[in-house]
Amino acid sequence: MTAHGGQFFSAAQQLGWSTEHALDQLLDFSASLNPLQPDFDLNINPALLMHYPPEQANPLQQLLAEKLQLHTEQIRLTNGISAAIFDFFNWLRPKQTLLYSPLYGEYARAAKLFSPHTQLIRRDLDTNSLVFPSQLNADSLVVLVNPATPDGRRYPRTQLIALLQHCQAHQSWLCIDESFLPFIGWQTEHSLRDQLAHYPKLIIFQSLTKYYGCAGIRIGAILAHPTQLENWPQATWPIATLDSLLMTQALQQANFDARTQAWLKQDKQDLITQLSDCRLIEKIYPSEANFILLKLHTPAQPLAEYLARQGLLIRACDNFGFNQPHIRLAVKTPAAHQRLATALDNYPC
Amino acid sequence: MTAHGGQFFSAAQQLGWSTEHALDQLLDFSASLNPLQPDFDLNINPALLMHYPPEQANPLQQLLAEKLQLHTEQIRLTNGISAAIFDFFNWLRPKQTLLYSPLYGEYARAAKLFSPHTQLIRRDLDTNSLVFPSQLNADSLVVLVNPATPDGRRYPRTQLIALLQHCQAHQSWLCIDESFLPFIGWQTEHSLRDQLAHYPKLIIFQSLTKYYGCAGIRIGAILAHPTQLENWPQATWPIATLDSLLMTQALQQANFDARTQAWLKQDKQDLITQLSDCRLIEKIYPSEANFILLKLHTPAQPLAEYLARQGLLIRACDNFGFNQPHIRLAVKTPAAHQRLATALDNYPC
Repeated sequence: MTAHGGQFFSAAQQLGWSTEHALDQLLDFSASLNPLQPDFDLNINPALLMHYPPEQANPLQQLLAEKLQLHTEQIRLTNGISAAIFDFFNWLRPKQTLLYSPLYGEYARAAKLFSPHTQLIRRDLDTNSLVFPSQLNADSLVVLVNPATPDGRRYPRTQLIALLQHCQAHQSWLCIDESFLPFIGWQTEHSLRDQLAHYPKLIIFQSLTKYYGCAGIRIGAILAHPTQLENWPQATWPIATLDSLLMTQALQQANFDARTQAWLKQDKQDLITQLSDCRLIEKIYPSEANFILLKLHTPAQPLAEYLARQGLLIRACDNFGFNQPHIRLAVKTPAAHQRLATALDNYPC
Repeated sequence: MTAHGGQFFSAAQQLGWSTEHALDQLLDFSASLNPLQPDFDLNINPALLMHYPPEQANPLQQLLAEKLQLHTEQIRLTNGISAAIFDFFNWLRPKQTLLYSPLYGEYARAAKLFSPHTQLIRRDLDTNSLVFPSQLNADSLVVLVNPATPDGRRYPRTQLIALLQHCQAHQSWLCIDESFLPFIGWQTEHSLRDQLAHYPKLIIFQSLTKYYGCAGIRIGAILAHPTQLENWPQATWPIATLDSLLMTQALQQANFDARTQAWLKQDKQDLITQLSDCRLIEKIYPSEANFILLKLHTPAQPLAEYLARQGLLIRACDNFGFNQPHIRLAVKTPAAHQRLATALDNYPC
């Protein structure tokens, strides 16, 4: 069973499809990436590649600081958010880790590797309420993804600030993963970013490549108090030159935010509408993100395998700890949704 | 003072030069990169960037296995060798580290961060002989760069195998950095690669971007026993898609090895010849690599600053622990050597 989504190239290989054919015909609903990729200009002078990248990855870091309304000293660029999660756990090696679950497999993996005691705090997927951890030792690490995955629920800022204060009162770290927050908006009011200056044990993980539809570019950002970033060592030159240049292009793309908002509003509704008559689906959870969680009447894994044979990848959520089968689907385009809906209708079960 | 070479972009910025002007006029002798860059074809379909990279970075890993005459299970691709050094120390956290010095600053930095006891074993730069560590506790880590930096000395394979056996007898790790070995040749006979199958505590670091003149591409390789690589966790998707595609192009470049051998033979001699009358130089050390170490009659740092103001970057070796001033120069092209030689002749001291 796949531990995570986004295995586009290995799926293509298993189908015996060429890369060109896969780019045209393989629909990956398992990775929640913005289908509105920016116009990347690869007309870049190869002579640039001779040299080590600039260590601060400017002007990218400066552009990102403006976008996030932060100082550059509060931002560390990393080789993708997976690497950031891994490196953060490896550095902190927290004695106790509390993961609001279900959440990305990457956190459970990192916790298993680098933290001797991990506890899951089960989120109630039917309400917005968050149970605060009752037993919290000093220097524990609490992790919450907001909007959450696989369900797309967003927790209100007032509640998150209360959780932050709770963690602070127990001298504990709070890590908020805001990777999908740009799909709701870049405005500070949605985020805990403005709290970074006041809470040195607040860490925010910000993926960039999901929102900009370019998971092949390996850049993510850790947002934290400058003191933490200074203390926390990093390998030299984490960001490749081409990735840095292309992400700079992405951040400068005109109207990308407005186009993304319009697409998400319209096409998320399209996906829900196209699935509304599907006999396999028991429930569609409300989502504020660019993906939706479905509860099924039928086991998820055989369905995922059936769809994969037709070039449709979905994320079976068997390893998220649900009692009933669930799948997660990325919002894509009406044509893609229709192909999926038709395949679901034809599922022989 | 700069802690390492290769700061091309920040040097350009300090000079107030545009990137285009710097690519044309700024000569970086401080980073030992092959000036014969492969012909990179950046005509790549941007749609490829939408998806997460293939986890095994094929076909690159397969090509590299053939080049190195190893199994793919003995190779781990990393986000550059700096990241590999950092991650390896972070994983192993050796109680005792012995560094054959002088060597890259990256090793001293990693040892300081992740190893409580670090000892330098001073190499005698006038002979090939290596002193073996006398006191070696179990699970210590011994690091040797071969060919060595900053001097370019190559240690004979028989001696390295004796060192390996010495480490093995003391249940210690031996890390050999063969980053510059491809400049001597890819043949197994120059390397300790064929010993990996027999010594589970042998680790080889293999940079690729120095040899292929593309430090902006962040890919390096750790070569080790498959069991070690299985035990040693890695973050997901360390290699960017574009980097993987371009490094694949590099490895498939026709005649690149022959052209590099011809260039190095001819132009290393040219550099030595052009410097032979320089009144600032006391000694040029023999080197088998693509750089040379010079002992000077004049302090290195002011000279480096004087040259930098003229767009010539050199590596002042003040932090390598020499009693007298030393600098390291990369072999480049006759025109570049001449510009450097002229500037040295005009140095007012």
